Amino acid sequence: MLDISITKTTSPKAKPDESNLGFGKYFTDHMFITDYTAEKGWHDARIVPFGNLDIHPASTVLHYGAEVFEGMKAYRTEKGVVQMFRPLENVKRMNMSAERLCLPQLDEEFGLKALHEFVKLEKDWVPRQKGTSLYLRPFLFGNDPLLGLRTIDRAMFVIIASPVGNYYAEGINPVKITVETKDVRAVRGGTGYAKCGGNYAASNRAATKASEKGFSQVLWLDGVERKYVEEVGSMNVMFMIDGKVYTPKLTGSVLPGITRKSIIEVLKDWNYEVIEKEISIDELAEAVKEGRLQEAWGTGTAAVISPIGLLNYQGVDYIINNNEIGELTAKLYDELTGIQAGLKEDKFNWCYKVD
Amino acid sequence: MLDISITKTTSPKAKPDESNLGFGKYFTDHMFITDYTAEKGWHDARIVPFGNLDIHPASTVLHYGAEVFEGMKAYRTEKGVVQMFRPLENVKRMNMSAERLCLPQLDEEFGLKALHEFVKLEKDWVPRQKGTSLYLRPFLFGNDPLLGLRTIDRAMFVIIASPVGNYYAEGINPVKITVETKDVRAVRGGTGYAKCGGNYAASNRAATKASEKGFSQVLWLDGVERKYVEEVGSMNVMFMIDGKVYTPKLTGSVLPGITRKSIIEVLKDWNYEVIEKEISIDELAEAVKEGRLQEAWGTGTAAVISPIGLLNYQGVDYIINNNEIGELTAKLYDELTGIQAGLKEDKFNWCYKVD
Repeated sequence: MLDISITKTTSPKAKPDESNLGFGKYFTDHMFITDYTAEKGWHDARIVPFGNLDIHPASTVLHYGAEVFEGMKAYRTEKGVVQMFRPLENVKRMNMSAERLCLPQLDEEFGLKALHEFVKLEKDWVPRQKGTSLYLRPFLFGNDPLLGLRTIDRAMFVIIASPVGNYYAEGINPVKITVETKDVRAVRGGTGYAKCGGNYAASNRAATKASEKGFSQVLWLDGVERKYVEEVGSMNVMFMIDGKVYTPKLTGSVLPGITRKSIIEVLKDWNYEVIEKEISIDELAEAVKEGRLQEAWGTGTAAVISPIGLLNYQGVDYIINNNEIGELTAKLYDELTGIQAGLKEDKFNWCYKVD
Repeated sequence: MLDISITKTTSPKAKPDESNLGFGKYFTDHMFITDYTAEKGWHDARIVPFGNLDIHPASTVLHYGAEVFEGMKAYRTEKGVVQMFRPLENVKRMNMSAERLCLPQLDEEFGLKALHEFVKLEKDWVPRQKGTSLYLRPFLFGNDPLLGLRTIDRAMFVIIASPVGNYYAEGINPVKITVETKDVRAVRGGTGYAKCGGNYAASNRAATKASEKGFSQVLWLDGVERKYVEEVGSMNVMFMIDGKVYTPKLTGSVLPGITRKSIIEVLKDWNYEVIEKEISIDELAEAVKEGRLQEAWGTGTAAVISPIGLLNYQGVDYIINNNEIGELTAKLYDELTGIQAGLKEDKFNWCYKVD
């Protein structure tokens, strides 16, 4: 396996105030980089001081959207152990995204080693306050200095890290979401299941418009029939109806979330029935009207669980659980964040200790 | 209007061999750059020596696909005049693409001035051999050094240029194309009509597979019904059936090509009937079988016109015009390249002289 050289910074930065970290604003002292060429494969793996990247103006990443990424977190437990949550899942998913975009893939073990060595070096950057964590952003992009549309012969894989605050520093409040009926995020056969730049670029306009109208997120519908629910903002989405949990099935346009997967495993362990199917927006609206839709929440790395209190569709507001966080939603949030923070038993063996 | 400062290179490069330029491999001595911030708007417009860009590793363009671009050409006429082809159309389209991705737009007149000043400085890089040109690549990307998904507050607009060879140095040969039935390039409501990175990232896998099977390009079908023809590779597509010219209408998932638009205007001027409609692949296959599909071609900036000789669909080869370039195809190619090279009358006033 590739060796990783380490060049430490000579001017470490002051750590930011842990009570005001926000998300993705501060970066640690170093970054991990490895380069790929068709001839040499991945090579020159190195941890170097954090700094700007030197990119050719014709680089594929600046023109043809050849970029995939991951989002994951390292946590500091009360005992001072630093651990990542299911990191191998992120490496696997990045490879799946890379396959869709014809980018070179990483050896899984090497990807894990890169994350491990990097977090080990940046250990002191994992914040200590309750609810905080070190957000890790691995990303991989095409880097050929040529304008022709062709096979990727050069690429770069980078990991950067950002200490992030408690998403719910002011308490968990349910969000208001609006159903987007004009813009489409992704379609079957497209890149929706890949974690790649283009999906986010397609989402931006609707998110901005929703925000201007006072909504936190957009509820995305499928690109074909425009009636099946897919994701909420950049999170997966789940609904409790008549005591069962429903979530959109992975048809190719929905991101296979690692939090989604973990929540499903926890629910099944708790003997909940979890149904992955195509869920129409009309079915949801009907379930709210009939009082059968009990709870709704988004799942993702940043928020872990985000309760949904209001669903706006065709100008009508559908209130969920009296706009309060539901019992199961709260229990799931406590369970998952408890496992991640080392406060609850890790019976699924999800935590990966960095020593 | 913003002033443009000019810093000339002190080490001009040797010009490459004009008989072996290829596409997008060589770059000129300078590049145009201007930066955007929400507070200052566009500022610091400058032409500087060509070189790598210094990009923050969290920059929006590396993660969230916030990138739009244009492709256009400057030609040297036999009289030594350097002219661009319909440059204002490219500026307008880049703004339309930017709107879809929530990127800041350029003042149209300023965009034209930037192109003009840049090409004027690089005039000697416009090659002289028949069929060659200076390819211009304006591109605009989000550049916030933050990982949160949010409004773009910083952006960069850059123009680079590459002397490119005669696309048909070895004569115009019709291409073989295959209908892609698995991957989807774009869908209504998505970003298909915008010239942005995500569309190209979504196209790469199918193009690679087609190439491995000996096809030059993929014929894209719509993402909803998977039956209507949209584009061929990264070109628009046209068919002559029973003496009339058919081309997919701009439904939102098709790029509004400037060559497409120009060809339509030329055809109408020649009294051809041009029909923009949804064209099903079965309709085309039927027309070939019945001998009614007379000619087919792609249109785009790089090739101008690319004749199609074979269409592979569901394992069946449909031969068009005996796999030879059609009469109208050839006439259109001669007309448009003739106008661009200053050999034919520019009756539409499409050429913009750079002096």
